[in-house]
Amino acid sequence: MDITITQPVELPTSGQRGNIDHERRHQILTAAEEHFRLFGYRKTSVADLGKAIGVSSTYIYRFFNSKQAIGEAVCATVLGKMDDELRQIVDGNGTATQRLRRFMHVTLERSLEIFFDGTRLHELVVAAMEASWCTATGHEDALHAMVRELVQAGRESREFERKTPLDEVSAGIAESIRLFSHPGSLQYRSREQLEAALTVVVGLILRSLVP
Amino acid sequence: MDITITQPVELPTSGQRGNIDHERRHQILTAAEEHFRLFGYRKTSVADLGKAIGVSSTYIYRFFNSKQAIGEAVCATVLGKMDDELRQIVDGNGTATQRLRRFMHVTLERSLEIFFDGTRLHELVVAAMEASWCTATGHEDALHAMVRELVQAGRESREFERKTPLDEVSAGIAESIRLFSHPGSLQYRSREQLEAALTVVVGLILRSLVP
Repeated sequence: MDITITQPVELPTSGQRGNIDHERRHQILTAAEEHFRLFGYRKTSVADLGKAIGVSSTYIYRFFNSKQAIGEAVCATVLGKMDDELRQIVDGNGTATQRLRRFMHVTLERSLEIFFDGTRLHELVVAAMEASWCTATGHEDALHAMVRELVQAGRESREFERKTPLDEVSAGIAESIRLFSHPGSLQYRSREQLEAALTVVVGLILRSLVP
Repeated sequence: MDITITQPVELPTSGQRGNIDHERRHQILTAAEEHFRLFGYRKTSVADLGKAIGVSSTYIYRFFNSKQAIGEAVCATVLGKMDDELRQIVDGNGTATQRLRRFMHVTLERSLEIFFDGTRLHELVVAAMEASWCTATGHEDALHAMVRELVQAGRESREFERKTPLDEVSAGIAESIRLFSHPGSLQYRSREQLEAALTVVVGLILRSLVP
């Protein structure tokens, strides 16, 4: 029985101000997520959000420096959920090999959910990645750090080779994972193509790790 | 001294008709490539091309079924040049390891040139990939087939392992190469990031091939 208590992943955000536990702040973020899903990030204005919950734009600026700051907070929740689930896999049961496999499958599944959920929420995440918001690079860093831990675990259990520098190995795997976590790489392909791709790439990675 | 005579790669195209060596056909394609570079594929019409070389749209349709057929022919030239160069690497000197490295570097270089050459030609290639024109899938198949040959060569020279099915190994490498050949994967990253990524992915692939 695994009893590790996994801390939720907190992705970085900029432009946040005021009390982050304020009820109004939560209301703004709930309205924002809803608007981003329905109308997309680009077409949503701070004024729209104010109207939706019955406050002025000025009031909203008490909590957020800009629309982007609101976007980052919502993005941190969306990507943070995925990172939490991945963190649980890393900290969970199984050999490093099993956990790395699961890690990659869940990365593809959750990324597909975020980018092709039928709403316009993906526009927000694409905007974050295009403009390298700290939330998006924080998510990439989180994935990379978790991959590094898995490789380290597999080295300790002697499942994986230990000659190549750990950073080099982790970076190579993290790059390969981009094929299944980045909107640009996902967009032209069907789920079937991506699942087939995942199988052969996981195989390649595991062969590269053989001691 | 290597004296292999390399056949130029012919990428598939659809909707071509009439004499493919006709001088007018070449004129149309020259005008098309120029228009696609300057104004982009989307904004160029068959009428624009007719005007540029002083013939009617009807005349152009003697050689091409549609604007897409013209796009495919231009795309086949652009991607075919890249594939020719890669074919020369595959057929050239050096160990399989050296050729695989060169193959991946040239794939990144030529893809960057196509997608970020400062003109709008990339719109054509993106359109081809988005809509899976036979020219784009033909290019992917060509890359995949060349990777397979390199792996086979490395197996014969005992540089690479021979336990894993050849198709599985080649497919894994071909997938990894998408990171450096597909506009979606290239678009959010700087040249420096891509070069660093290439180094660690080539390392990962070569480790996966160790006998």
